[in-house]
Amino acid sequence: MAYKVSYFNITALGEPLRFLCSYGNLDWEDFRVEYTPGVPSQKWLELKSKMPYGQMPILEHEGKVAHQSVAISRFLAKKVKLVGKDDWENLIIDSTVDTVADFRAKIARYHYETDAAIKESVKGPLFTEQIPYYLKKLDEAAKTNGGFLAINRLTWADLYFVSQWDYLNGMAQIDLFSDYPNLQKVKKNVLAVQNIKTWIEKRPKTII
Amino acid sequence: MAYKVSYFNITALGEPLRFLCSYGNLDWEDFRVEYTPGVPSQKWLELKSKMPYGQMPILEHEGKVAHQSVAISRFLAKKVKLVGKDDWENLIIDSTVDTVADFRAKIARYHYETDAAIKESVKGPLFTEQIPYYLKKLDEAAKTNGGFLAINRLTWADLYFVSQWDYLNGMAQIDLFSDYPNLQKVKKNVLAVQNIKTWIEKRPKTII
Repeated sequence: MAYKVSYFNITALGEPLRFLCSYGNLDWEDFRVEYTPGVPSQKWLELKSKMPYGQMPILEHEGKVAHQSVAISRFLAKKVKLVGKDDWENLIIDSTVDTVADFRAKIARYHYETDAAIKESVKGPLFTEQIPYYLKKLDEAAKTNGGFLAINRLTWADLYFVSQWDYLNGMAQIDLFSDYPNLQKVKKNVLAVQNIKTWIEKRPKTII
Repeated sequence: MAYKVSYFNITALGEPLRFLCSYGNLDWEDFRVEYTPGVPSQKWLELKSKMPYGQMPILEHEGKVAHQSVAISRFLAKKVKLVGKDDWENLIIDSTVDTVADFRAKIARYHYETDAAIKESVKGPLFTEQIPYYLKKLDEAAKTNGGFLAINRLTWADLYFVSQWDYLNGMAQIDLFSDYPNLQKVKKNVLAVQNIKTWIEKRPKTII
């Protein structure tokens, strides 16, 4: 195998990598570690100390290891030719991806908070201010770009975003995107790609 | 001016951009907005709604605007030739930068928290677990790379990190790096660059 992607048996931060490998028909292994919400699995406890920063996803290639979901996604995007045509386009793609990552981090901070009082204090501003703010801006960008998130054609920013669509909704426990028709166009454009369609049909069914 | 960098009149997330522009002697404007801790300045309130996602730093170039500190830093790093020699090196640089950004975000979450109870609950794990974990790993990487953070020569990961050195210490209110000799070598290597030295001497003196 040219590439080995290791992540939990969920979508979340591993799914952008799987979308990109599938899109480009790369020679890749989809290695999954059992995921048990709340309590780390035995297998994960064994593996965690071997991970670069105790986290997944990781990418292995020719005996080397890399971590960080966004960084790996960018690397794979170069391999499958979903990057910009010049440095400025790549800047806009990168800033879009980091914005989607910021958006996800805000929802994740709420979702994974175990202290009920903290969770409650985060909830209000998240749902009434932060989420609508980001979604409006992202929807405007998708409108400007004719159904793509960063620039006016398919890039890895679209795959990065759409691969986490269900995960974001799952964490927020609402349909975040129902009022945002241009973000739905982004989803439609990504899911119209035959290799992505095939991947979604054949990927393991998971809880998230 | 070829490039205009806009940020508050502090180091923080704007300083990596200023280090990179200075390193490469780019034709750039250092635009600063008055910073008032806790309360947004009048000038910032006027500007905020014009920013791509209500935040700075931004980069302006040939009538176009981009946001996101890390994405802009990567763009500038290409201009000043502080990137890797191939895609894998760039992946390692990117993952290192994102790890430094994660580290900063954990300290920032503590520093900027206004609810005393939440702040206290975050403090213990941050100082006894998370900070030592990251610093040990980063110091090991710097040792492996002979005094550089990502690969075995100067890259934008080193400038990204060292430009936030005082900001990180200021937020944590301790000297984070005193027990980490290899991270101190990274600092020494960056500050030994004449253009960086000149920048630090001439930059405005700020509260952070």
